[in-house]
Amino acid sequence: MNDPSKLERSRIVHLLQADQSPGSVLVKGWVRTKRDAKGFSFIEINDGSCLANIQVVADETLSNYATIRKMTTGSALSLSGRMVPSRGQGQRWEIKAESVTLVGHAPEAYPLQKKRHSDEFLRTIAHLRPRTNKYGAAFRIRSQLALAIHRFFQDRGFHYIHTPILTASDCEGAGEMFRVTTLAPGDAAVANDFFGVNAYLTVSGQLEAEMLALALGDVYTFGPTFRAENSNTRRHAAEFWMVEPEMAFCDLAQDMVLAEALLQHLAGHVMDHCAADLSLFARFVDKELMHRLAALVEKPFFRVPYADAIAILERSARPFEHPVAHGNDLQAEHERYLVEHHFKGPVIVYDFPKEIKPFYMRMNDDGCTVASMDVLVAGIGEIIGGSQREERYDMLRRRIESIPLAPENYWWYMESRQYGSVPHSGFGLGFERLVMMVTGITNIRDVIPFPRTPKNIAF
Amino acid sequence: MNDPSKLERSRIVHLLQADQSPGSVLVKGWVRTKRDAKGFSFIEINDGSCLANIQVVADETLSNYATIRKMTTGSALSLSGRMVPSRGQGQRWEIKAESVTLVGHAPEAYPLQKKRHSDEFLRTIAHLRPRTNKYGAAFRIRSQLALAIHRFFQDRGFHYIHTPILTASDCEGAGEMFRVTTLAPGDAAVANDFFGVNAYLTVSGQLEAEMLALALGDVYTFGPTFRAENSNTRRHAAEFWMVEPEMAFCDLAQDMVLAEALLQHLAGHVMDHCAADLSLFARFVDKELMHRLAALVEKPFFRVPYADAIAILERSARPFEHPVAHGNDLQAEHERYLVEHHFKGPVIVYDFPKEIKPFYMRMNDDGCTVASMDVLVAGIGEIIGGSQREERYDMLRRRIESIPLAPENYWWYMESRQYGSVPHSGFGLGFERLVMMVTGITNIRDVIPFPRTPKNIAF
Repeated sequence: MNDPSKLERSRIVHLLQADQSPGSVLVKGWVRTKRDAKGFSFIEINDGSCLANIQVVADETLSNYATIRKMTTGSALSLSGRMVPSRGQGQRWEIKAESVTLVGHAPEAYPLQKKRHSDEFLRTIAHLRPRTNKYGAAFRIRSQLALAIHRFFQDRGFHYIHTPILTASDCEGAGEMFRVTTLAPGDAAVANDFFGVNAYLTVSGQLEAEMLALALGDVYTFGPTFRAENSNTRRHAAEFWMVEPEMAFCDLAQDMVLAEALLQHLAGHVMDHCAADLSLFARFVDKELMHRLAALVEKPFFRVPYADAIAILERSARPFEHPVAHGNDLQAEHERYLVEHHFKGPVIVYDFPKEIKPFYMRMNDDGCTVASMDVLVAGIGEIIGGSQREERYDMLRRRIESIPLAPENYWWYMESRQYGSVPHSGFGLGFERLVMMVTGITNIRDVIPFPRTPKNIAF
Repeated sequence: MNDPSKLERSRIVHLLQADQSPGSVLVKGWVRTKRDAKGFSFIEINDGSCLANIQVVADETLSNYATIRKMTTGSALSLSGRMVPSRGQGQRWEIKAESVTLVGHAPEAYPLQKKRHSDEFLRTIAHLRPRTNKYGAAFRIRSQLALAIHRFFQDRGFHYIHTPILTASDCEGAGEMFRVTTLAPGDAAVANDFFGVNAYLTVSGQLEAEMLALALGDVYTFGPTFRAENSNTRRHAAEFWMVEPEMAFCDLAQDMVLAEALLQHLAGHVMDHCAADLSLFARFVDKELMHRLAALVEKPFFRVPYADAIAILERSARPFEHPVAHGNDLQAEHERYLVEHHFKGPVIVYDFPKEIKPFYMRMNDDGCTVASMDVLVAGIGEIIGGSQREERYDMLRRRIESIPLAPENYWWYMESRQYGSVPHSGFGLGFERLVMMVTGITNIRDVIPFPRTPKNIAF
């Protein structure tokens, strides 16, 4: 017998990768399932370090075997024993238990018994669903993607910056912002409010990121952004994370190259580093997943000007719900047709009409379109939106004055165009849409641990 | 002559590290200073990739030399030429210009002319201050620290998680939260609000992080948190970033070990990876900086129970402004005495009286103190606060019912103690305080690109 107090705890992800048995091991985790036979029990233990469980064999020679027989799904255990080659199928190693201690009991009412649960039901127990295979895998992949984003940019000399969440300006000029206040509900005395003016949650860190790009060269943000949009769709949440690189001395063509390289790198990264978790999604969620990811990594993205994309949609003669017309924005159904039917791969649509894009995008020489781009992928639609920014003071001033924005809020932004202004570009990548793209999960509520949508702020 | 359009742009950080000249180079950046002599000019160019400038020599053989002579500080340039060993002092390489193009002019009104500016003045031009040596260095170090945090945790198998920013619950039970609404100012009809209930900006992601630790094992957050505290101090901002690890099967002693290892790793990381930027702070901001960082990396942190810390303060017979008494929280002056005078190094104070700590901290067997810890460092005071969490359902229920929190908002938190509950611990590291510790900057407004404080939401 080993003294478990002398062993250091092992993580299951490491044990299962072992070439040789380390001998005695100490494992702590939760019971996923238990099967009882005559004289012994098989317990599947998961500790969150990976998708796989480790099988533990506890037999009647253990002094507390009667207690072990009664241990339930969801209970927390600490156990020690010898790691030995498994005689069962499906695993290389198992643990022959020498000591099993109940740390925390889970009663029969524990909702995650061994059966399939609907995504809708699991959303009502968001505090427990990370304990399922699917959500555990989704959140581990989410973590890996976040790290891969940092590495991608830092390896290229980008500096990570934090732009403010609280803001008095509206980057997109689109409204739909949450207001932030310390006044009691009903009190309208803005002068007494925390900031003395109306304050909002940011919809994008771009304007501030531009200021830092004009000093540090290449920068990126990775932080939460907010939309107070009262729409219940599979693709929209009130709170989501965004990655926003911004590069000085960079034009739209270089911006597109970076966007493509980033998505290809991230898809390749999860294929290389999250194979086990990814296999769950390929088996149970989206049969086309691995094929689509491989194609995304290997094939160059298509590039098509907006005007040509409209012509393609018109020629398709499809009965779209939203009319196709030059000057209209692309709707989800149009994006899907371009990506899934026409090009059959990721597409970068660029040079949109200025009327449907924000004020900060650079006017093209035609005077009608701006140096903008949307990256569209299968199943998601727009995953990246970006542009070259208007660096010319006079052009920018004219755009700001033509729209209902208060120019006095933007004095600092304007001033950056007077002091050593340079061509610069950037884009925004919706992080949740990226997780959806990589896992095949189709509802944004299922890639965020605790999603926020209209009337939904539980947990 | 080279055709600059055929050259790929080099970053100055790479050029200055070169062992051999790459020959012809293309550089883009901003004029920091220019000195004119008879027949030639020395231009110092910075591109944000590092603290150092590269010196460019432009002579009268250049066709636009008359224009170059008129180029001003802050202007953006694109230039090509041969990189050659410098004959001047203080740099190894310089560029003999073959082509210099003005990209963006900066007029004489550009505020960052070559002279020292006060921190107070630079806060009023937060959109430009990253172009100064000091703030450029601070924000590059900030970026490096963020990456080092991710690496530290991911190398140890932690999963990065995003906990919600918008919340209906108050983690600390301390009030002082911003309210978030889509109602017009003065409208008190909460039922019509976006979430249908009062919603707030989070003060900590801990409660939700616990749910994920109880599924994934070891997790950490790194995201913005908010305090609507109407206090104007050097150490407080309304919006700041926090790092919050949370570990299942972890007690307070292990929590302290991780906190110490993290701070030592981060201090060591900037010493190794940010030597040039750090040297600016060691020279101009804090003469003791390198000594203090080296000591922090090398020496174990002191550990002292709260009761002993109080006894030390009482024995000191110092005329503290705030009275020292068992049951009172430690004030900044007390923390400073412990760190700077008594222990002369970082101190972990633990086992605080339950009355001055939040409800979720684990009750010690004495029934009076909780398994809490504060890590105190010189110049900053508390940089980390953490605890072992109360994992026992009945004890937690009693704590929640004894304080003015609505228990119905915490049903999910309570439930985690009924389904396979385990000992678990975590802490919060204030990221801005970390940047202050590492740079010697004494005002939190100067380590955040666009700080938010009472009545201050410009930019």
